[in-house]
Amino acid sequence: MHGVVVQHVERETAEVIDGLAACGVATVHEAQGRTGLLASYMRPIYAGARVAGSAVTISAPPGDNWMVHVAIEQLLDGDILVVAPTSPCEDGYFGDLLATSAQARGCRGLVIDAGVRDVRDLTQMRFPAWSKAIFAQGTIKASLGSVNVPVVCAGVPINAGDIIVADDDGVCVVPRQNAADVLIAAQAREANEKAKRARLAAGELGLDMYTMREKLAGMGLKYV
Amino acid sequence: MHGVVVQHVERETAEVIDGLAACGVATVHEAQGRTGLLASYMRPIYAGARVAGSAVTISAPPGDNWMVHVAIEQLLDGDILVVAPTSPCEDGYFGDLLATSAQARGCRGLVIDAGVRDVRDLTQMRFPAWSKAIFAQGTIKASLGSVNVPVVCAGVPINAGDIIVADDDGVCVVPRQNAADVLIAAQAREANEKAKRARLAAGELGLDMYTMREKLAGMGLKYV
Amino acid sequence: MHGVVVQHVERETAEVIDGLAACGVATVHEAQGRTGLLASYMRPIYAGARVAGSAVTISAPPGDNWMVHVAIEQLLDGDILVVAPTSPCEDGYFGDLLATSAQARGCRGLVIDAGVRDVRDLTQMRFPAWSKAIFAQGTIKASLGSVNVPVVCAGVPINAGDIIVADDDGVCVVPRQNAADVLIAAQAREANEKAKRARLAAGELGLDMYTMREKLAGMGLKYV
Amino acid sequence: MHGVVVQHVERETAEVIDGLAACGVATVHEAQGRTGLLASYMRPIYAGARVAGSAVTISAPPGDNWMVHVAIEQLLDGDILVVAPTSPCEDGYFGDLLATSAQARGCRGLVIDAGVRDVRDLTQMRFPAWSKAIFAQGTIKASLGSVNVPVVCAGVPINAGDIIVADDDGVCVVPRQNAADVLIAAQAREANEKAKRARLAAGELGLDMYTMREKLAGMGLKYV
Amino acid sequence: MHGVVVQHVERETAEVIDGLAACGVATVHEAQGRTGLLASYMRPIYAGARVAGSAVTISAPPGDNWMVHVAIEQLLDGDILVVAPTSPCEDGYFGDLLATSAQARGCRGLVIDAGVRDVRDLTQMRFPAWSKAIFAQGTIKASLGSVNVPVVCAGVPINAGDIIVADDDGVCVVPRQNAADVLIAAQAREANEKAKRARLAAGELGLDMYTMREKLAGMGLKYV
Amino acid sequence: MHGVVVQHVERETAEVIDGLAACGVATVHEAQGRTGLLASYMRPIYAGARVAGSAVTISAPPGDNWMVHVAIEQLLDGDILVVAPTSPCEDGYFGDLLATSAQARGCRGLVIDAGVRDVRDLTQMRFPAWSKAIFAQGTIKASLGSVNVPVVCAGVPINAGDIIVADDDGVCVVPRQNAADVLIAAQAREANEKAKRARLAAGELGLDMYTMREKLAGMGLKYV
Repeated sequence: MHGVVVQHVERETAEVIDGLAACGVATVHEAQGRTGLLASYMRPIYAGARVAGSAVTISAPPGDNWMVHVAIEQLLDGDILVVAPTSPCEDGYFGDLLATSAQARGCRGLVIDAGVRDVRDLTQMRFPAWSKAIFAQGTIKASLGSVNVPVVCAGVPINAGDIIVADDDGVCVVPRQNAADVLIAAQAREANEKAKRARLAAGELGLDMYTMREKLAGMGLKYV
Repeated sequence: MHGVVVQHVERETAEVIDGLAACGVATVHEAQGRTGLLASYMRPIYAGARVAGSAVTISAPPGDNWMVHVAIEQLLDGDILVVAPTSPCEDGYFGDLLATSAQARGCRGLVIDAGVRDVRDLTQMRFPAWSKAIFAQGTIKASLGSVNVPVVCAGVPINAGDIIVADDDGVCVVPRQNAADVLIAAQAREANEKAKRARLAAGELGLDMYTMREKLAGMGLKYV
Repeated sequence: MHGVVVQHVERETAEVIDGLAACGVATVHEAQGRTGLLASYMRPIYAGARVAGSAVTISAPPGDNWMVHVAIEQLLDGDILVVAPTSPCEDGYFGDLLATSAQARGCRGLVIDAGVRDVRDLTQMRFPAWSKAIFAQGTIKASLGSVNVPVVCAGVPINAGDIIVADDDGVCVVPRQNAADVLIAAQAREANEKAKRARLAAGELGLDMYTMREKLAGMGLKYV
Repeated sequence: MHGVVVQHVERETAEVIDGLAACGVATVHEAQGRTGLLASYMRPIYAGARVAGSAVTISAPPGDNWMVHVAIEQLLDGDILVVAPTSPCEDGYFGDLLATSAQARGCRGLVIDAGVRDVRDLTQMRFPAWSKAIFAQGTIKASLGSVNVPVVCAGVPINAGDIIVADDDGVCVVPRQNAADVLIAAQAREANEKAKRARLAAGELGLDMYTMREKLAGMGLKYV
Repeated sequence: MHGVVVQHVERETAEVIDGLAACGVATVHEAQGRTGLLASYMRPIYAGARVAGSAVTISAPPGDNWMVHVAIEQLLDGDILVVAPTSPCEDGYFGDLLATSAQARGCRGLVIDAGVRDVRDLTQMRFPAWSKAIFAQGTIKASLGSVNVPVVCAGVPINAGDIIVADDDGVCVVPRQNAADVLIAAQAREANEKAKRARLAAGELGLDMYTMREKLAGMGLKYV
Repeated sequence: MHGVVVQHVERETAEVIDGLAACGVATVHEAQGRTGLLASYMRPIYAGARVAGSAVTISAPPGDNWMVHVAIEQLLDGDILVVAPTSPCEDGYFGDLLATSAQARGCRGLVIDAGVRDVRDLTQMRFPAWSKAIFAQGTIKASLGSVNVPVVCAGVPINAGDIIVADDDGVCVVPRQNAADVLIAAQAREANEKAKRARLAAGELGLDMYTMREKLAGMGLKYV
């Protein structure tokens, strides 16, 4: 269980991954049947980032960030680090040195069910992070964990190579094997929403556009 | 209780409403005797917005945003949507399509004791929202609620037509029947604070300006 | 216990204080052996501030900000106000008038284990504050507390004259008697990190730079 | 708003009140259309109590229990004290002396959106309390509040004379004017549930007893 | 994804399941490598219960308990119901009628990442439940979910047929395929602990029994 | 800072300690000027215990209980273990084996700003514990901490030898040097309360007993 680094991870194509990033968290979450959303306490350290990437997962002991160093070697261009402590923890596992190293290897960001620090530096570097806490509390390097094993992060199971989509709305995970289909559904949804948005902006009511009036009346809605 | 839409709502004049917006939450809250403040967990999705408007209230089942569509038809120019779930919920009831529709009808913002999503879009649209959570979790359209009935939102009773004041400090509600008086009191407070601010900025101490020294000494304050 | 104002407080030199500010919270926290960090719920009201100053401490009753007025008289140029309620409270003890007064006396910011309000004004004034809540709830001036006595703020003991370092990562306290030594350690750490950062940015791995591979293998890490 | 004691309060008959107590919180809550339930953080200090009574409401400043003394004079036999602080607070407003005094006047219990203390004594006295916290933190007697005015307690509006029902499931409020009707509905529900309980205990399935199978199949439920 | 009931579920033998119950949560958690522990907010509604059973899992919409009725038909003697809402919710999905029905079919208890009600009745029936909240808030029967599909409950993935172990320490899940091995490890651990317990009770120190002194000295522990 | 065991600790006499236990948390807290109370999240694992003892303090890394073993050797009859992690943690540092060992050395209980496990066993042993969480999550023995150094536990500074008083109301700390005086004040308070309790039980009102009526009227309280 502990002390394993899985080196070979299947990844989706950049085309699918970047397509999902363009759709954003809310659309992708809807497109895959309202699953895969991490808990709402996972917040970005700065506003405006929208990324997607393949998950390099880290199962780490509480307060011990040794495995993050191990995981960085496993990063390929376009990946996202996903850190899940084995018990609840808000210590600051990750700061500007690790971000520098990860960014040098093409990493697009961090998702951590714990704390992050040096957020001013990370913001200046435009290295986005979604975390449970911002907390400078230091960690140690004393115990093993694992890299690229299945983890549960902020309530959601994640496998290495799954696609992480993250923006100001939070973080959503798309299982790799579903990613191409989810992208198609998400893009269809976007196209559909674009037309709806124009009609709503012009003043048309959702009640009419979605033909809800009869159903509401049938359920007994009363206007007084 | 459920399934009612109240269509006629008394509203305050734009003059009073805009006057309250100019005063801001902290001043209005003080001016009405320190009442009407929603819980501190109600936070804006972006900094810098300051609005006031007449409340269009929504009592909604948990995880069901159908009544928001119904409420949008009831919006008049200058209104603010107020959503109160009937049990605690942080699902994302409201996103960019609803915001587009509400904004097209003159809605100035959203106050929701639950979640909001598409916050990047809402920020770009300058459609402000104050919420308990930012969460992309989708909602359904299966059960009735009510519109423009009395609700309790984030701990505070709100009636349709009450004035909502919201800014970076949070959200305050002014009962409609008191609004004109509260505005007078708030403006008086502002005028008074302006003079005080100048004196304090010049280095005068509050201890002297408010003549607190004797009272403090009388209560036994010791300088050592 | 209550009702005491200590007027004479030893302070560190501006050189040491400003040196600590330049290092920032995460580095200072590490440099003093990972102690002195306030709880992670202490968040800045706006991003980007980084300050250090001598603590003027306030022990205040819940919902009563009278002692803040008393404390402002004790401020010297470069100080930071530290407010610790005697029981948990999130009321808004501090707003733009107090900030104006404090800033006029050279105060660099506020650290409060409670609420702050008028955050839009404080942001415009560039008066930074770190707090448990943003909440407009008013306070009274009815009971005594104390100024410049030892307090516990967000879990950390603070004495008057201790150095507060605060930035986007949170708040750290350096006992005054250790400050010069901590600065030396922090600056050494910074110098060391600068070199490491360059190597990591160039693509060198932490595994190699810190020569971790053997130790990891010795503990049983398996690559599969 | 502050400083008012309403002395005359309409109360329901003991028959209705005791009838509601016998039904318990969950049944009463259902019988009045799933309204009136206080937040789930309101927990009893000991298990097994089930009471109902007329609310004597207290609006109190944070950390100040003076109005509790005032309210005790307003108690009639069978009443329940309801304390709502004007800002969030978990201080221990109420302990064994106040409980002794309240019990001497026939009070059946306490509902407080704050803290309670001396819970060992209260348990021995069989004086039940539902609270947000158990916390020995003392309060002061410095500022006025009001008694028997409308309050919002743990998210629910309560008027003096409304019926409080409380048991191990929490606390529910029944507006006085609805109480007789709610009792009839609650007793009908109980009678109905008794029969259902017997059938379920005998092994009949809810799917059959409620004839849900067709509706589920119609919505697309698949057995695999 | 939604609307599926898996009818055939592999279950462990009663011998293994009951063996795990006898070991209890803390021992089983240790015996399987410190995995499988649900979040600490999952608390029993009464003290003293210790059970194990095969999981019948329920993925349910927020505030909708329809699938619990469906799941009860799938219960075999010795099973435990596991309810995971698809978004965070504390509504009371489960009360005395459902408990009566479940108990009639041999169900040993409930684990729910949401609310439970009628806890006085459940306590009298000795039907144990572990939940996130005790809350009488009613639920509806309007939308489909699924039964015996994989869920994540309080942070832990659970498959139908996995063994749930629950007692006053919380809830632990043992994957079915590991259960026999985990039982052996747990029983070995118990045997080992029994001997240790006797030595510690006799006054022997853990420092000596575990021969820790040298290792501590080697790491630099100083006695002053 | 780390890795120190202070072996000589001054302790109060059993007479003073047991006197404080008899007074209980709420009275002792009042008697020492409303200070020393640990945060309200510190709850007993079972109801009815009331103890006092000299603190043996433990500063421990998150998720590492090695120092508890070290501390047990330092226990004298009548002591109480106090565990403060160096960063927030709810892991289960302490279970039945440690309790057996501590009890064998005369330890009266545990106060821990983290988790405890085996609470069924601890309850049967009548070994009381006050904790932030009940959580079976295991800890490691990899890093040093310190024993009998000053700690901050649940917001309150505690020195070795300080007197811990704990009961159903929570936990209060009395600095050793004040303990004899606090006992006198607490006992005086108890005597005083006994007489008041009798008068209140007889129906006398606090308004009269404390002669509050005039003061209230003077502040403007209105009866309507």
